[in-house]
Amino acid sequence: MASSVTPPRGMRDYLPADKAKREYALGRIRDVYTRYGFDEIETPVVEDYSRLHGGLGGDNEKLTFSVLKRRLSADDLRAAADTGDTSAIADLGLRFDLTVPLARFYTTHRGELPPVFRAIQIAPVWRAERPQKGRYRQFVQCDIDIFGEPGPLAEIELISATAAALRELGLSGFTFRLNDRRILTSMLTAFGFDDTEHPGVLITIDKLDKIGATGVVAELRERGATASAIDALERYLARVDGQKQGEFDADQIRSLLPGGVDDEVITELASIGRAVERASQAAGAVEHNAPLVQFDPFLVRGMGYYSGPIFEIHHPELGYSLGGGGRYDGVVGRFLGQDVPASGASLGFDRIVDLIEMDAARHDEAIVLVHDRDVDPSTLVALKTQLVGRGARVRLEKRVKNLTALLDRVTAAGFTAFAFVRAEHEDANELEIKPLG
Amino acid sequence: MASSVTPPRGMRDYLPADKAKREYALGRIRDVYTRYGFDEIETPVVEDYSRLHGGLGGDNEKLTFSVLKRRLSADDLRAAADTGDTSAIADLGLRFDLTVPLARFYTTHRGELPPVFRAIQIAPVWRAERPQKGRYRQFVQCDIDIFGEPGPLAEIELISATAAALRELGLSGFTFRLNDRRILTSMLTAFGFDDTEHPGVLITIDKLDKIGATGVVAELRERGATASAIDALERYLARVDGQKQGEFDADQIRSLLPGGVDDEVITELASIGRAVERASQAAGAVEHNAPLVQFDPFLVRGMGYYSGPIFEIHHPELGYSLGGGGRYDGVVGRFLGQDVPASGASLGFDRIVDLIEMDAARHDEAIVLVHDRDVDPSTLVALKTQLVGRGARVRLEKRVKNLTALLDRVTAAGFTAFAFVRAEHEDANELEIKPLG
Repeated sequence: MASSVTPPRGMRDYLPADKAKREYALGRIRDVYTRYGFDEIETPVVEDYSRLHGGLGGDNEKLTFSVLKRRLSADDLRAAADTGDTSAIADLGLRFDLTVPLARFYTTHRGELPPVFRAIQIAPVWRAERPQKGRYRQFVQCDIDIFGEPGPLAEIELISATAAALRELGLSGFTFRLNDRRILTSMLTAFGFDDTEHPGVLITIDKLDKIGATGVVAELRERGATASAIDALERYLARVDGQKQGEFDADQIRSLLPGGVDDEVITELASIGRAVERASQAAGAVEHNAPLVQFDPFLVRGMGYYSGPIFEIHHPELGYSLGGGGRYDGVVGRFLGQDVPASGASLGFDRIVDLIEMDAARHDEAIVLVHDRDVDPSTLVALKTQLVGRGARVRLEKRVKNLTALLDRVTAAGFTAFAFVRAEHEDANELEIKPLG
Repeated sequence: MASSVTPPRGMRDYLPADKAKREYALGRIRDVYTRYGFDEIETPVVEDYSRLHGGLGGDNEKLTFSVLKRRLSADDLRAAADTGDTSAIADLGLRFDLTVPLARFYTTHRGELPPVFRAIQIAPVWRAERPQKGRYRQFVQCDIDIFGEPGPLAEIELISATAAALRELGLSGFTFRLNDRRILTSMLTAFGFDDTEHPGVLITIDKLDKIGATGVVAELRERGATASAIDALERYLARVDGQKQGEFDADQIRSLLPGGVDDEVITELASIGRAVERASQAAGAVEHNAPLVQFDPFLVRGMGYYSGPIFEIHHPELGYSLGGGGRYDGVVGRFLGQDVPASGASLGFDRIVDLIEMDAARHDEAIVLVHDRDVDPSTLVALKTQLVGRGARVRLEKRVKNLTALLDRVTAAGFTAFAFVRAEHEDANELEIKPLG
C-alpha cells in the first residue's frame, strides 16, 4: 500500500532543499520586479469555467482541470452524458495561465488601479497535459504585465526587468529573440497566403526550430496551403537561413524581410532592441558573446492573442526557451468591453530554478543542539529560544550512537555549528558551540 | 457586463497594498519558523479524491471542491446521476487542509526525511462553505508540524514557535488555551457517558463559548444523551465556571477536574505549560496581564483525529481563535500502515493579517520619474535602470496636468521621492530627486 501513496499524477512535492531553493529564487525575482516599479497582485486559483473557455487560452483551454459544480442535479449529469459537454456540470476551472485571470482582475478593479498598471504575478497554473519528463501538470509562472501603455516603452520595461531578474539569479548568456506579429502577418500576405490561412501557417512556422525549413514546407503542402505562397516562403527561408542571429537595427531587419512590411513597425522594433541594450549597459551588465536582443522573423509565440511585438528568451546551452511574452492589446476588451493596451513577459520558473545555484545559507549561524534523552524539554526549548533570540537558526536533535552520521546529515541540511546539551545546562552561555563541516 | 466580472463566488483578489502586506507577514512567519528549526515543504494543491474522503477531514470532507476526471465516459456520468455519487466522475479534489497532504507527503518521502521531521507549510486551502463575512472559500493556512517526536517536547516547540511568530508580527496579549483529548475522554467516562456517545457530546461541548452551560445541557438532553451523565456534567460546569482562566500548574489542573483522569496526562500537560512560559521568558517576551498558557478543560478542537494535547490561540479583544493545533498520532498510520507520532499547530493567516500593521516601506528609496511625453523610451528605461542599480525602487509616470493628484497617488502607494525627466536628460546624476509627502 505504501508504494501507491504518491502525489497526483504529473505533479510534484517539494522537499526542504528544493523548497528552500524555490523560495530563494522567488524572493530574488519578486525583489527585482518590485524595484523595477511593478506591484504584486494575487487572484484565486480558479476562475469561472466560461472565462477559461472564451477562446483566449488557445489549446490550453482544452487542458483546463474543471471543478465540479456544487449542488449538482441528476439532470445536469444526464445532460452532460447525452451531449458530451461537461460545462453543464463544471462551473469553475483551475487557471491554465496568469493572463486570463489578470485581464479579469483588471476589469474587476480598474477603478482602484493606476492609469498605467504594472503587475507582478508569481503563482502556480495547471494544465492536464500528458505527464512527461520536464513537463508537469502544476507549475509556477512568474509574469509581469503592463496595462495602459500603448507604446514600445512597455516592451522595453518588460524586457529589461526580465533580463535583470535572470541576472540577479546568476544567469548570463541568454538572448531575447524579438519579432512582431504585424511583421509575420505582412510577410504571410506578401508571400500570398490568404488571411484565413494565417493561423494555421503560423502554427507550422512555429515549429521551424524543431523540423527545419524542409519540414515546414512539407507540412504546409500536406495541409494544402496555397502552393505559390509556399514556394515564396521556401525561397525566403533559403535566403535568410542562418542570418536571424544578426545585429539588431532597422536596416538589418529591413534587409531580412520581404517587401510589404510597414516601416513604422520595423522602426518601433528596432527602437525596442536599442533601448534594451542601452538599459543593459546602464545596469552594468556584461553580456557574453551574443547581443542581448536578436531579431527573429520566424518567432511566432503560440498564443493567438498577440497583436504586436513578441519575444522569447533563449540560452545557447538549452534546447528550450526560458520564457517570453508580447503585446496583446485586444484581450482586456473581451471582459471590459473596451480595449486596453497590454503587454506582458512570463518566466518559466521551474526551468530557471533547475539552472541556478542557491546563495549560501541565509542564516549566518545555524546550530544543532544535540541532547541527551534525560534533558528536560523545558530546558531544551529555553536554550533553543535563547539562541534564536541571538539570530541563529536552531534545531534540536536527540543524541544517537552514530554521532558522525547525525552530524553529516545536519551539515548536508545547511547547519553550520553544533553543541551538546546535558541535563545540567541551564543557560545558552554554558554551551560549547563548535563549527560543523 | 463589466459589473458581472468578479472573482469566483466566495474568493478574493488581492490588490497591491493587500498583497504586499500578506507577503510581508508570510515572510516574517516563514523566517521565524525557519529559525526555530522547521523546514518548509510544498505539495500540489490537489490530492486524490479518495485520500480527501478517507475520514480524516471530518465535516471538511463534504466541503471539498472536486476536480473532474480527465476522459470522462458517458457511463460514468449516468452512474453518477443514478447513484448521486460523484466520486465516479471526480478523481482529484482541492485540499481542505494541510494535514492530510502532509501525512501523504510524509508517507511518500519518509526515507528522505530526518527521524524527527519539522515541517512548515504556508499555502492556500479550499472549502466550499457558504460565503459569509470573514469566511472565504480560498484561504491561507500557516502550519508547522513535528513528526517522530512522541513526547511533550513537540507541543512545547510548536507553541513557542507559534508564539514567537505572532510576536514577530507585533501581536501581543494572546493566550494559548491548552487541554488534552485524553482528559476530555476520562471526564466524559467519569460523568457516565458511554464511549459511543463521546463524539456527539464533544461536538456539543465545543459550543460552550457560544451557547453557554445552559445551552450545552439543553442540547445534550435534546440529543437524548444519558440523563445521569448530563446531570453530572451540569454540576461540574457549575463548579468550574469562570475558573478555567486560572494559573497553569498540575495542582490547579487536578483541582479543576473530576476524578478518573490519568495523573500522567495532567503532569505532562502541566510540563508543557511551564516549559512554554519559560521559553517565553527566554525570548524576552513581556506578556500582558494574562499568562501565555491557560488550562481549559472544555477545549475540544473540532477534528476527530486529535489524540493528546490540544491547544487554541485566543485574544481577549477577538471573538474567534487565531489558530490552534494538537497531537494526532494515528493519522500518518492511515497512509503508511504504521503509526508515527505527530503534532501540529496552524495559524489562521487571513485573520492575523487583518490585525497587523506592516513595517515601513522595505525599500529605503522609492522614486517616481515623472516624464514629459517627448522623452525617448530608451532614455527613460536607462535612467530607471541606473537608479535601480543604486538600490532604489523606481517607477515611470507620464506627466499629467494635475500633478498634485499624481504625486498624492504615488505617495499613497509608498513612493518616497520623485524627479522630473526631460528630453535632454541623459544620466541619472542630472536628475533633481526631491522627497515626497
